Amino acid sequence: MSLAPIQDPASYLARHLGPNREEEKTMLAAVGYPDLDALLDATVPHGLRANGQPSLPGALSEADAQLKLRAYAEKNTILKAFYGQGYHDTVTPPVIRRGILENPAWYTAYTPYQPEISQGRLEALLNFQTMVSELTGLPIANASLLDEASAAAEAVGLMSRAKKKGRRVLLDARLHPQVLNVATKRASALGLEVSTEDLSAGLVGEDLVGVLLAQVGTEGELTDLRPYIDAAHDRGGLAAVVTDLMALQLIESPGTLGADIAVGSSQRFGVPLFYGGPHAAFMAVTDKLKRQMPGRIVGVSVDADGAPAYRLALQTREQHIRRERATSNICTAQALLAVTASMYAVYHGPTGLKAIASRIHQAASAFASAVSSLDGVELLHEHFFDTVSIRVPGEAETIRRRLAEAGYLVRVLDGDSLSVSFGESATLGDAHVLADACRPGALAPFEESVEEAKEAHEERIPESLRRQSPTLEHPIFSSIHSETQMMRYMRVLADKDLALDRTMIPLGSCTMKLNPTAGMEPISWPGFADIHPYAPDEFTEGWRQLIEELEGWLAQITGYAKVSVQPNSGAQGELAGLLAIRAYHVSRGDTQRDICIIPQSAHGTNAASAALANLRVVVVATAEDGSIDLEDLEAKLEKHGDHVAAAMITYPSTHGVFEDTVSTVCRRIHEVGGQVYIDGANLNALAGVARPGVFGGDVSHLNLHKTFTIPHGGGGPGVGPVCVAEHLIPFLPGDPNEKDSGAITAARFGSAGVLPITWAYLAMMGADGLAQATAHAILGANYVAARLHEDFPVLYTGQGGLVAHECILDLRELTKQSGVTAADVAKRLIDFGFHAPTLAFPVAGTLMVEPTESEDLAELDRFIEAMHTIRGEIQDIIDGTVAYEDSVIHHAPFTAAAVSADEWPYSFSRTQAAWPVSGLRRAKYFPAVRRIDEAYGDRNLVCSCPPPEAFDLDESPEQH
Amino acid sequence: MSLAPIQDPASYLARHLGPNREEEKTMLAAVGYPDLDALLDATVPHGLRANGQPSLPGALSEADAQLKLRAYAEKNTILKAFYGQGYHDTVTPPVIRRGILENPAWYTAYTPYQPEISQGRLEALLNFQTMVSELTGLPIANASLLDEASAAAEAVGLMSRAKKKGRRVLLDARLHPQVLNVATKRASALGLEVSTEDLSAGLVGEDLVGVLLAQVGTEGELTDLRPYIDAAHDRGGLAAVVTDLMALQLIESPGTLGADIAVGSSQRFGVPLFYGGPHAAFMAVTDKLKRQMPGRIVGVSVDADGAPAYRLALQTREQHIRRERATSNICTAQALLAVTASMYAVYHGPTGLKAIASRIHQAASAFASAVSSLDGVELLHEHFFDTVSIRVPGEAETIRRRLAEAGYLVRVLDGDSLSVSFGESATLGDAHVLADACRPGALAPFEESVEEAKEAHEERIPESLRRQSPTLEHPIFSSIHSETQMMRYMRVLADKDLALDRTMIPLGSCTMKLNPTAGMEPISWPGFADIHPYAPDEFTEGWRQLIEELEGWLAQITGYAKVSVQPNSGAQGELAGLLAIRAYHVSRGDTQRDICIIPQSAHGTNAASAALANLRVVVVATAEDGSIDLEDLEAKLEKHGDHVAAAMITYPSTHGVFEDTVSTVCRRIHEVGGQVYIDGANLNALAGVARPGVFGGDVSHLNLHKTFTIPHGGGGPGVGPVCVAEHLIPFLPGDPNEKDSGAITAARFGSAGVLPITWAYLAMMGADGLAQATAHAILGANYVAARLHEDFPVLYTGQGGLVAHECILDLRELTKQSGVTAADVAKRLIDFGFHAPTLAFPVAGTLMVEPTESEDLAELDRFIEAMHTIRGEIQDIIDGTVAYEDSVIHHAPFTAAAVSADEWPYSFSRTQAAWPVSGLRRAKYFPAVRRIDEAYGDRNLVCSCPPPEAFDLDESPEQH
Repeated sequence: MSLAPIQDPASYLARHLGPNREEEKTMLAAVGYPDLDALLDATVPHGLRANGQPSLPGALSEADAQLKLRAYAEKNTILKAFYGQGYHDTVTPPVIRRGILENPAWYTAYTPYQPEISQGRLEALLNFQTMVSELTGLPIANASLLDEASAAAEAVGLMSRAKKKGRRVLLDARLHPQVLNVATKRASALGLEVSTEDLSAGLVGEDLVGVLLAQVGTEGELTDLRPYIDAAHDRGGLAAVVTDLMALQLIESPGTLGADIAVGSSQRFGVPLFYGGPHAAFMAVTDKLKRQMPGRIVGVSVDADGAPAYRLALQTREQHIRRERATSNICTAQALLAVTASMYAVYHGPTGLKAIASRIHQAASAFASAVSSLDGVELLHEHFFDTVSIRVPGEAETIRRRLAEAGYLVRVLDGDSLSVSFGESATLGDAHVLADACRPGALAPFEESVEEAKEAHEERIPESLRRQSPTLEHPIFSSIHSETQMMRYMRVLADKDLALDRTMIPLGSCTMKLNPTAGMEPISWPGFADIHPYAPDEFTEGWRQLIEELEGWLAQITGYAKVSVQPNSGAQGELAGLLAIRAYHVSRGDTQRDICIIPQSAHGTNAASAALANLRVVVVATAEDGSIDLEDLEAKLEKHGDHVAAAMITYPSTHGVFEDTVSTVCRRIHEVGGQVYIDGANLNALAGVARPGVFGGDVSHLNLHKTFTIPHGGGGPGVGPVCVAEHLIPFLPGDPNEKDSGAITAARFGSAGVLPITWAYLAMMGADGLAQATAHAILGANYVAARLHEDFPVLYTGQGGLVAHECILDLRELTKQSGVTAADVAKRLIDFGFHAPTLAFPVAGTLMVEPTESEDLAELDRFIEAMHTIRGEIQDIIDGTVAYEDSVIHHAPFTAAAVSADEWPYSFSRTQAAWPVSGLRRAKYFPAVRRIDEAYGDRNLVCSCPPPEAFDLDESPEQH
Repeated sequence: MSLAPIQDPASYLARHLGPNREEEKTMLAAVGYPDLDALLDATVPHGLRANGQPSLPGALSEADAQLKLRAYAEKNTILKAFYGQGYHDTVTPPVIRRGILENPAWYTAYTPYQPEISQGRLEALLNFQTMVSELTGLPIANASLLDEASAAAEAVGLMSRAKKKGRRVLLDARLHPQVLNVATKRASALGLEVSTEDLSAGLVGEDLVGVLLAQVGTEGELTDLRPYIDAAHDRGGLAAVVTDLMALQLIESPGTLGADIAVGSSQRFGVPLFYGGPHAAFMAVTDKLKRQMPGRIVGVSVDADGAPAYRLALQTREQHIRRERATSNICTAQALLAVTASMYAVYHGPTGLKAIASRIHQAASAFASAVSSLDGVELLHEHFFDTVSIRVPGEAETIRRRLAEAGYLVRVLDGDSLSVSFGESATLGDAHVLADACRPGALAPFEESVEEAKEAHEERIPESLRRQSPTLEHPIFSSIHSETQMMRYMRVLADKDLALDRTMIPLGSCTMKLNPTAGMEPISWPGFADIHPYAPDEFTEGWRQLIEELEGWLAQITGYAKVSVQPNSGAQGELAGLLAIRAYHVSRGDTQRDICIIPQSAHGTNAASAALANLRVVVVATAEDGSIDLEDLEAKLEKHGDHVAAAMITYPSTHGVFEDTVSTVCRRIHEVGGQVYIDGANLNALAGVARPGVFGGDVSHLNLHKTFTIPHGGGGPGVGPVCVAEHLIPFLPGDPNEKDSGAITAARFGSAGVLPITWAYLAMMGADGLAQATAHAILGANYVAARLHEDFPVLYTGQGGLVAHECILDLRELTKQSGVTAADVAKRLIDFGFHAPTLAFPVAGTLMVEPTESEDLAELDRFIEAMHTIRGEIQDIIDGTVAYEDSVIHHAPFTAAAVSADEWPYSFSRTQAAWPVSGLRRAKYFPAVRRIDEAYGDRNLVCSCPPPEAFDLDESPEQH
């Protein structure tokens, strides 16, 4: 392979790559190689590159890629979605679509681990938590989960962690089938006994962990849950409720009913159907359970000036810290969608939401009244919110087809019954059309049936179930009612944050690179956005062709036999992969294989996922150079022999090095009968150049939101396709509506809605483009390493002293000498307008820098200048010129308020604090808060919006 | 009419209005009226309100309005545009579409009259000027004109101003028909003798003002212009050239050829076809002609700290200052589109643009070679850039139809010939298909004809015409090549500016109100964006239905018989209206009627437009209360009698008052045989409540970019529909492709592309909604007046002490006492995060505040708080506590650099400078520069980008 004559300036590749030809030369010279080929030869072990080039179609231009996407979108049929089953017709307010979903300031942001530069998105997520908490009546909500079904599974897991004894979980048979299937699979994997029960007969048996209840049944029926909740509690179990945020406008909250946990989807709060996702699920719990909560929680703390400040709370529960003892393996959530749903709630407010819910209920009631009057049509349930199920013996399919002709999508329950679920845009006119289709021509005229419905309306929700408790009392939900206000609110929040639209985010192991606008635009097209995930295949040809093609390309790139895009995050992909391995061993009778070998340097997620797959984790040491310690590996294999189910490795390693022992490691694992799991986190160093499925892997998961240009969205969406070798194909996740299909998420294609982004990226790059990008990712990291290693030693290097696509800067010696920590450097970088590199992973006391191929030379040099300047500030401390406690670095970052305060209490100058380098004069970012006190927030846990008075200047210490 | 039970919270109206019901009550209480009806009764004269309610369809929701728009878009047929004639296929880079055209930070901005808060858009416009200047080879370019045809007309006007003697203008017969028609109409209106000539015979005759030449003929032919330019100069005339920025990549620039003026359209630099507009035209001139330049010019000056800063230069040429002696009546330009085109040039750079031009030329050459080989097909011209015209006796229409079937749009010149014009996305494959359609099946295979074309390629542009001079040498055009860089560049610039997405812009007479996202989104849909303006009607049914419906609604709202949306700005609408009046008088033999009566308080544009219509301006005095002085009017009518062609009045007056004498004024004008022109600038105080066509007007123009929610875009686009009474219908502008049709712009429906915004607004508001909006606009202004009049006296009020939709705050007395000027207050408001109100219009020494109906109470109160605080700062000066020269207000505004500088040279505190009120702690805007020295910039005129060194911190006085 030769990378010689590339970069047609009109190609997308030339737009995707940061450096142009000239800059590339400068960088190569600094690294000491004549061209990219030579650099690749020197970094990537030769053995791995054999058969490394995938076979992909030739690269398209942006315009041609969009033309093809348009053709796919047009092959989908948009029907008005009256299908329900967890996915509802909703209206995305255009101002929110444009302001959030289509705004790079929001969608290119990273997870808010650096809270000082994330106050905007943290506020939006806190609004989400507040909304969930108020609506569910439970005090602690998290900042979103991946989808309703996996959230239900997490609820089961939470109950089992909270109730250490007990093995039995009861699932309410009225739950949606996909929820039952996913929760059953996940609970079984944990070794729990799961059974799906008709609870109306009463709860029976002992040893109860808990019960998972449906507040709204899959057929739409409303039931009083109090008896079941009480019964669960009486038997020592917990009660979790799957609920619906829109129904909760009118029916009583789970918390008020006594539930311990509530989960559900916030999709119908303004998030398009997206053929299945991404959508933000939610979870809320009682105060007692808060430390068992999975996923991220935003909390309130204070900054160095004592001002209120948001941050992620209770991070010690999470997998990146607790590894296999974490509450879950969740890293990616659905931040962007949670923000969207929260903005929808802010925009409509309590009154508006109640009005929407009432209109929905009225339309459903009108339909129910109308069909009740028809011969041979029977309501299955008298009490409902939005979904009406009817018995039409032998005619369900005929009616469905008739309605599809008329542009409506309804759900067939079985040959004799179907259900019709009303959403935000449903009108009384729709109700009439839908009813009329059951017995064409037999219906009373529209006006009559409408009048009737209005009268009947109230009776459909029995008095005992109606909501008495208030909704959304926090002022944020009553302060923004006009479009102008909403536009400005989103702008104010976005301006507080640093995202990729303002700065490089050089996060080692996280690949924050360009999200191509040509791929982002299509996700809003109705032909993609407005398709229900359970629409029959005849209406989704375009979606399925696109996905099939994409899965094929990903298989080509990774060298595996088959790919499933179903997992909604990398962690979910990992779990799916490990469950496939486990099922494979079991299918061969190797039931004893329950050990997963994981190197010391692995992502915490690896261990957490193994735990969720009920695998025991055995850690293998890392050698001095960052590679897996082969001796220790031998010792572990010796010891655990035929109990080894799998080894999970990351390649190139999380140390940012291409280990040349990877083939040996794979071979040894296979020799003891284990399967090799290659974490695709670092595929940005391989794509187009080497293929894990060829050089030794049995399974990998990818992160489309890293290597494959789906944006991080401030912490999600994510897509974690799982890729497997031939022998594992039968164990890939299947259709969530089918029992025992191994589905890992609620929708067949997971977060399908964002797949056009990756499709566009691959279509526009082609195989050569991917190889170019990989070479540039490696060039960028080596350029930074070469320019910075004198200031900050590069911890690990591979052959030729080169790194892979990231490099670890070791601060430990400097910390010893000066007291300045890696965290101090991370905070100080904010004053230079940078998002910090990865902090303390994989080695404490270090920063891991991954520039990606999308950063141009000027931006890299700007970063190098900042780091160099900071190094000088550290030297001043080492030299004794400045005490650490008095240093600018110790007090960083600085807000505009701080550097323009009348008093200046520091020994360094304001200019040094805010304008350390001249380039800042052209574009300067000020964080909204100063350094945040992490511990304070966990000691004083507040996870919903503080009252407005908390921000009153007169009460805040910034006041002079 | 009753305004009682409104504001369904789910309606668009409730989103459009700033105040909700509760806030409305608070505001009414402050103004002293129980409800909106009572307030309207008290403000709007009763006589005017009779028949004030238009008949419009019921209001739609956002979603339903978009559904209807989608149906219209789908009724248009998208053909690949090979039509040419001034409108070309181009590829809008998605990152620019999203970052500029779809970004409220750019499109909600106002004209950069306040340069301190406009540095971002001024930089982008300076890039535009630099691009035009470098490509045309002429040193001074303006910041855009309305369209190519009117730019050509402006060039003719400029020549006649520059050459005070001479009456004769020659138009090159090879110009596009629409250019010839518009330029002829406009030049004739100025009293020039215009003739269209085949110049190849040589220039003849005396008394020459100048010649307008086509660098690329309408049939595509390239001609050496040097002989014509020299001949014009020899005869004492000037030479203006209509050119094409893409062709200029390959052919020599007009400046190098000796031209004095170059004009053209920048549409094909990334701006969609938009069925005719909006597109930015350009003009560049020699240094000698710079003070004759029409339109806005961005120039470079310095700020109070000596840093380089951008601003509008030479404003004294413009109509808002020079009135009827202005260089033109242009106010609105095409800023947003000029920014788009400039970003396209920045993104592609000189190399990329040349590559695009070469690809276009190669495709055209391939086509030409291929058709040359066919029997019975003849090339009309051997030398061309992108457009190939062929003779196909008797078959032009057949071939056109055949190609339309295949998805291509070409131009029929006449029954025997057609022309095919290649654009950015054209491929060699397209060339082959197009050629093949001329003689189906007769063509050599694709490969052969392509090879031939590659060889023939160079000969199509003769050596003598090829460009020798360099293009785009300024570094800005070579510094941004990746999508990431482009995304960040647009963000950095946007962040420097204040637009409506961050603050109220309370500009009296300019109505900066919400631009509904639901209306903004559709303009990017291909079904609207990708339609050529001259596509035959069979392909544009959706567009024409939409426009017809919109024109009908506007006629309803204004009470006129017919409306034309053709004018591309309010000023162009005025001119069209005045020309209609003039033509009407002439048609009745009243050729002597050449006087236009204009009140003292009128917009300068009124007078400038009258001048362009060759009307003499007579000014009528304004009475103390702001109304027209009836006595003076009588005197003027007496004196000028049957010479009065028209009176132009604004209602409510530019003093922000509903004068109750308006009916009298109208009656008196009619009595002397004049026509009444009612300027629609203030229709935001009338829509839905009173109709100018009913209460006395014969003509009005509207500003869709004000009252009807099209965004200002930083100074354009604009749409200025002209509305006329029955008797004036024959004089409305017609089809620009038809001779003597009275067309005022190049496209039949002007800036059609933005009309869906107004359509959506009206569809979503309905008649009641418009009345509500008007009532709220009046309520907002009266609330501000009531709350501020003690601080700043309100200059004019009408009956009941009320103002209309805006109020004038009189600072003259305070200026006398303190030295603080209205301009000081405007600059100080920046520190509070506000765009200043209108400054010094219509009365010097005042600020005119128009809050609009879209501002909520909190935002109004934030403004009132700012003004109140500033009033306190003024009082300190009056009281002698602080000297004016030392005051915070005199030194305002303050950059972040200034308030965080190590030195603080002021007697007031940093907190007072930057944080005068506590609300700023939540969201603070810092301008990019301090107060700009306006005079310096005009003394040292620099109108293209300064070199990067100019911004070097080490050279700048900010450095410490």
